[in-house]
Amino acid sequence: MAVTRLSSYDDYAGLLDRYDVFMFDCDGVLWHGDHLIDGAVEVLNILRSHNKKIIFVTNNATKSRRSYKTKFDQLGVEAHVDEIYGSAYASAVYLSSVVKLPKDQKVYVIGMAGMEEELREEGIAYVGGTDPADCTLGQLSLTDFELDTSVGAVLCGLDTDVTYKKLSKAFQYLTRNPGCLFLASNEDSTYPINGGLLPGAGAISAPLRFALGRDPIAIGKPASTMLDCIKAKVDFDPKRTIMIGDRLNTDIQFGRNGGLATLLVLTGITSEAEITGPNASPIVPDFVTQSIGDLRVLKKE
Amino acid sequence: MAVTRLSSYDDYAGLLDRYDVFMFDCDGVLWHGDHLIDGAVEVLNILRSHNKKIIFVTNNATKSRRSYKTKFDQLGVEAHVDEIYGSAYASAVYLSSVVKLPKDQKVYVIGMAGMEEELREEGIAYVGGTDPADCTLGQLSLTDFELDTSVGAVLCGLDTDVTYKKLSKAFQYLTRNPGCLFLASNEDSTYPINGGLLPGAGAISAPLRFALGRDPIAIGKPASTMLDCIKAKVDFDPKRTIMIGDRLNTDIQFGRNGGLATLLVLTGITSEAEITGPNASPIVPDFVTQSIGDLRVLKKE
Repeated sequence: MAVTRLSSYDDYAGLLDRYDVFMFDCDGVLWHGDHLIDGAVEVLNILRSHNKKIIFVTNNATKSRRSYKTKFDQLGVEAHVDEIYGSAYASAVYLSSVVKLPKDQKVYVIGMAGMEEELREEGIAYVGGTDPADCTLGQLSLTDFELDTSVGAVLCGLDTDVTYKKLSKAFQYLTRNPGCLFLASNEDSTYPINGGLLPGAGAISAPLRFALGRDPIAIGKPASTMLDCIKAKVDFDPKRTIMIGDRLNTDIQFGRNGGLATLLVLTGITSEAEITGPNASPIVPDFVTQSIGDLRVLKKE
Repeated sequence: MAVTRLSSYDDYAGLLDRYDVFMFDCDGVLWHGDHLIDGAVEVLNILRSHNKKIIFVTNNATKSRRSYKTKFDQLGVEAHVDEIYGSAYASAVYLSSVVKLPKDQKVYVIGMAGMEEELREEGIAYVGGTDPADCTLGQLSLTDFELDTSVGAVLCGLDTDVTYKKLSKAFQYLTRNPGCLFLASNEDSTYPINGGLLPGAGAISAPLRFALGRDPIAIGKPASTMLDCIKAKVDFDPKRTIMIGDRLNTDIQFGRNGGLATLLVLTGITSEAEITGPNASPIVPDFVTQSIGDLRVLKKE
């Protein structure tokens, strides 16, 4: 199926006719790091003025929804905590509502404060994470290490304080605690920042994946777990919902997996060459436009 | 081809008839951590008394040959630096003799002091490694980061001080320096210590492998690069050489790749169930014996 390139007023107006719910990836779509994409705020306001439901779906696992909202506030983008779905939140909901982790079990976290905050809010006990004892360099002494048999899951997200100690502890739980779950908030290979790229959350769980020889259960986009989490909180018709993102293998695949329409913007990771030409990706969005700002033509006069 | 189980005096004496060069993996074969395997010293002495050439082939990349010799000394095992081939040394030789890294280029190291020592001895300039600036937690600021365009290779070994900063810098070199090589000292998934397992060197390069979507050139066992490195220094006939090890997917595969005979010992990673029965590995050694100590029967009266 070929991608439809949006360009005329009627093309964009067609989106308003066809969709009631607009799901947005954030980085690369609404902003780049600390810089708003031109027209993004205006377009969100236009959609709100048409009574469209807005949902922000981000794989960012380092921030809780609450701290992610601060980012919206700083950039002057209207957003409400219950419109924001991050992979840290979705991971916590997965543990509390899908896995139903027993109350006497806890999670070993490779991740940052935002992930811990979401786990606390869902009533999930955790160890590791920002614990200073684990945020130190050097080897884990297995002689001194006491296996906590109540650790029933290891959850990995992006962690810029990842250490060999954390990886080693997680490895002990995953190999020595029977049934210990291996979860990844998301599997983004890279993480865009300041016009460059750093290794993403998928790179943080990669050492465990390699050492164990098995893959984690991934929560964030493109996994359907994230959509299940949204469905549990918001009533929406997938046929009247569109997912807007800049990454084919996360955002667009996520939309396709969930039966949503998809709109690719070219202000982020994906380049024109990946959707046209001989080396085009097999993941094809329904629509493509240069920038979310293109929807400004819909402004009511 | 079925494995031959050694048990009688004649079985062991046959090894002396057929092989002139005995290559040994160390951990799991000669010792466990700081504990010698019973009979190991005696067997090495017996082989030396029969004028057999002894070569120690280890994937350990954290120690230089010189510091690895200290380990032999402490355990009371006779060894000479030129009998020891470690993956840090082989990596340095690969860069100096195979790649012939230009003198104005350097290597970015994710690894420890032993790897740096081997690079220095081969005259290879390096950055990263134990540099305190890279051994700190937190995110790499791409705004402050200056890309060193003379970095022509990234070399990863086991590094218990691995940080997100090191991974992020390595990622910049590998994605922004044209032709930058991606090397791994070895790809062991785990690393045995104190009767337990920690993530191995392969887990340290795994984040880059995942973020880049490509595999490193691996130097250590089972790659033939390690054997090429030994061949460059020692004159031996592969047909009259036997590799003795405890791991099927490193030691035994290494021997098979190089056309050497192979002897598996069961004092390390591999269990009986992996060589017999319905779930046996497809990697079959020529010979198996419980322990290297079994060769003590060859002691001259």
